[in-house]
Amino acid sequence: MLKRVFGLPLQLTSKRTLSTVFYQRMSEQTATTPATPVADVPPQQKQKSGKGKKSKLQVSLKTPKGTKDWSDIDMVIREAIFTTLSNLFKKHGGQTIDTPVFELREILAGKYGEDSKLIYNLEDQGGELTSLRYDLTVPFARFVAMNNIQNIKRYHIAKVYRRDQPAMTKGRMREFYQCDFDVAGAYESMVPDAEILDIIVEGLTSLGINDFKIKLNHRKILDGIFQVSGVSDEDVRKISSAVDKLDKSPWEAVKKEMVVDKGQTEETADKIGEYVKLNGSLREVYDALSQDPIICANEKASEGLNEMENLMKYTEAFGIDKFISFDLSLARGLDYYTGLIYEAVTAASAAPENAAELKKKSKSSEDASEYVGVGSIAAGGRYDNLVNMFAQASGKKSGSQIPCVGISFGVERIFSLIKQRMTAADIKPIYTQVYVMAFGGGKDWTGYLPERMKVAKQLWDAGIETEYVYKSKANPRKQFEAAEKSGAPLAVILGKEEYAEGKLRIKRLGPEFADDDGELVDASEFVAVVQDKLSQVHEDGVNEVSRLIRGL
Amino acid sequence: MLKRVFGLPLQLTSKRTLSTVFYQRMSEQTATTPATPVADVPPQQKQKSGKGKKSKLQVSLKTPKGTKDWSDIDMVIREAIFTTLSNLFKKHGGQTIDTPVFELREILAGKYGEDSKLIYNLEDQGGELTSLRYDLTVPFARFVAMNNIQNIKRYHIAKVYRRDQPAMTKGRMREFYQCDFDVAGAYESMVPDAEILDIIVEGLTSLGINDFKIKLNHRKILDGIFQVSGVSDEDVRKISSAVDKLDKSPWEAVKKEMVVDKGQTEETADKIGEYVKLNGSLREVYDALSQDPIICANEKASEGLNEMENLMKYTEAFGIDKFISFDLSLARGLDYYTGLIYEAVTAASAAPENAAELKKKSKSSEDASEYVGVGSIAAGGRYDNLVNMFAQASGKKSGSQIPCVGISFGVERIFSLIKQRMTAADIKPIYTQVYVMAFGGGKDWTGYLPERMKVAKQLWDAGIETEYVYKSKANPRKQFEAAEKSGAPLAVILGKEEYAEGKLRIKRLGPEFADDDGELVDASEFVAVVQDKLSQVHEDGVNEVSRLIRGL
Repeated sequence: MLKRVFGLPLQLTSKRTLSTVFYQRMSEQTATTPATPVADVPPQQKQKSGKGKKSKLQVSLKTPKGTKDWSDIDMVIREAIFTTLSNLFKKHGGQTIDTPVFELREILAGKYGEDSKLIYNLEDQGGELTSLRYDLTVPFARFVAMNNIQNIKRYHIAKVYRRDQPAMTKGRMREFYQCDFDVAGAYESMVPDAEILDIIVEGLTSLGINDFKIKLNHRKILDGIFQVSGVSDEDVRKISSAVDKLDKSPWEAVKKEMVVDKGQTEETADKIGEYVKLNGSLREVYDALSQDPIICANEKASEGLNEMENLMKYTEAFGIDKFISFDLSLARGLDYYTGLIYEAVTAASAAPENAAELKKKSKSSEDASEYVGVGSIAAGGRYDNLVNMFAQASGKKSGSQIPCVGISFGVERIFSLIKQRMTAADIKPIYTQVYVMAFGGGKDWTGYLPERMKVAKQLWDAGIETEYVYKSKANPRKQFEAAEKSGAPLAVILGKEEYAEGKLRIKRLGPEFADDDGELVDASEFVAVVQDKLSQVHEDGVNEVSRLIRGL
Repeated sequence: MLKRVFGLPLQLTSKRTLSTVFYQRMSEQTATTPATPVADVPPQQKQKSGKGKKSKLQVSLKTPKGTKDWSDIDMVIREAIFTTLSNLFKKHGGQTIDTPVFELREILAGKYGEDSKLIYNLEDQGGELTSLRYDLTVPFARFVAMNNIQNIKRYHIAKVYRRDQPAMTKGRMREFYQCDFDVAGAYESMVPDAEILDIIVEGLTSLGINDFKIKLNHRKILDGIFQVSGVSDEDVRKISSAVDKLDKSPWEAVKKEMVVDKGQTEETADKIGEYVKLNGSLREVYDALSQDPIICANEKASEGLNEMENLMKYTEAFGIDKFISFDLSLARGLDYYTGLIYEAVTAASAAPENAAELKKKSKSSEDASEYVGVGSIAAGGRYDNLVNMFAQASGKKSGSQIPCVGISFGVERIFSLIKQRMTAADIKPIYTQVYVMAFGGGKDWTGYLPERMKVAKQLWDAGIETEYVYKSKANPRKQFEAAEKSGAPLAVILGKEEYAEGKLRIKRLGPEFADDDGELVDASEFVAVVQDKLSQVHEDGVNEVSRLIRGL
């Protein structure tokens, strides 16, 4: 990866000599200031204050644990991910909503199982107890119930908060973005569910991620398996959350949890063990289960199997079966799921093989990046009772249930994958197209600052990104350096005499145009010439950001 | 204003009869289900749960005080405001950053004067004391200091939090967006400041707000006035915050505060009173002050006056003087300003004339909308010491000061102005371009659901916003209703026989095309035909959102 200062490839400094060719020829009035190094930005700019010194300081210059600032090209990449995903959601008929960052605490209560302890609480606000949202799903269900909405496809891109152990370089943070798409409304079995799976495939591939699989299971089938294995109904959720640990822990540990901590017999645990080992294509696992008389005799499991049969038709229509792995060990921790559940994983999702060892060796107790994986990069499921739960708990006489199904993309995790593949893409955090400069000299030389402002204003009024040096008299070298730093492809130059005669010079910037003196045009028509030249620049230009995002 | 259900003008229901003309003719296989009313969305959808019932409920279905959900076309308008402002900021060379929603509490401490009591605190996070950010300026200064940044133009569009008395319909909320643009770095006097003022003018006019003025003052001049009036240096900030109340309180009340509460003599207060009454154009007030020998003899005031002289040159170059009112009563509450201060106001900014009376009559203690104005719609100023304050407090050996100047647009307040001018603009919250339908009948009619999915998938792959009814067999009327609700201009129709022969029908939607049977095309080329037809639709279409935003 190219080392960058302030979003600017360091190699640009080498181009400087090329531009000097131009400006030394361009005008006899050139100032005499000698070349100075580019760096008014010190090299340590991107470093944070040393952690060792903290104890001596009055104020810690840092962000709270598990949070970070985003800036520079990281921000450009993250915004490009947001744009890609919102366009995807719009493509599927989604409309967007926004809910407050904090909710009444009672809204979040009892929705997240064992993870409820990770919720951030605010101090009592004069009798109102509030907490930062833990996800976007519960606020969405609250919104649907509160407004008596019967059906909606909504997307929501916003921050959520979890007081978990952070692993920053793996994109596992305490403040992070979710990009959610959910379909609320009573529809035919598996029809919206299949579209959600298609959205996962479209979303990840459009972000250049192709080596993923969607692990998928059905809560009804899982509950059926627990029933036929001898788990009582009230134990189902806690056994489910034991199974959920199978992606991190070996079967023996999970079995121990079931038997020792959660009161199941050895036999029950072993029966569960046989089932949850099953995984393969939708068709394979479906066939295996539908030939199992015990499963077929269980009402819940057989309901789930019927739904899976529908799902197969639709995933075939979308041509997305190849991405799907029917995996009976997938349980998902959250309480509110009632049907299909799924998560998308890549090779980077898994923890390193020797995670336990690495954890012992890890020097940081603050960050788990050394020994955890990226985790799932998108996850979701069907939750048919959540809206109703709110409607009932609030005393609403809601007639019908509002079933929901949705998906949440983990942006920071996806970002960390995109950063890994990043090569020397020429991405800049600013969009400046024109740099306005003035060249002159002699005793009566004013530097043309108000004149540069007037010229810039005309360009702004035409919608063109324009900058100039904030200095009355700026020497040509400084102006060229600033222009190159900005990445602007064009300069508009006010030559001392030329401008006095109503002329402006328009010049392409960049090393390949160092010998080009540009074009002298009438001040009255310069905006049109600039627009014309910019459309030429962008005609053959490639958008480096989308190239990077799509992994090209 | 048109009453809307779910973003859909109610009048659309009347178009239904027109489309029935088409589909009854279109196919002999038409289903027989009778017409049903459009409304699967009940009319009370947009109503919140009645406040009177609250006490009986277990869970209050509401958002915390001073916060609200955003949805539907409100969301479309707000996003259009964000886009307008980010494009503006990019036009001026801005790059964007993102900081966490909460900061270490010590970062926010001592920055907001009397308003510090409005900060939201989070519960202790295992030894870390954090608070929700109160503005975007202090986090920005923390970011600049932490990363040793020497210069940056940054914009940041994000939520901030203030535990103030809300006035929801006036856009004064506890959770609200700020859109900030700031220039950090040591530059020539007033050069970036003038560009910031230009950004206010460009920003507001591009949002269709033309009847605003920018009230502007200079802290150094104000401090000079206090000095020559006999205020001691340590009293300056508290006298300044008394003057700040002049936009809400009469001079007599402010004078009383100075004399009775803040220990100034009558004479001092009267002298201040003479000065702060002054306002007019930049030139007028500048001339008045620079002819005042007492002011000119004061070092601070005369420094400020010199700066104002520069500023006038630049605002003239930008042609924005006519928007500016030099107003010596403007003080701004925040502690950190050191130079130019300004705020943009419109007629709606002021409280009603009989505010005190209205306040007494007001039925709600929860919301102040009945008796307050919208307030300033953009505000900012120069703060030259804030970055340095952080650098020093953290023990950094920072060489140079990093002076800053910036502006913050109040989006919710601007939104409330745009909503007021809103007429029957045809804005929809979704972007669907194509509705895929199937028409057929008879015993062997399957409804073509997987086939519709395949067709939709091809359109999605081509980047086209596409929906279809989530039902195996949907009757034509239902499909047309859903299509009209979505606002899609085109339908792709799978006729039972036509599709079997490899043909798809492409038809324009809308009442004016009721008699148009559309075009039958080869399934192999239908995507190209759709793209072609859509480009025709959008060629003569007007973007209603930008029309509304720009106030056309």
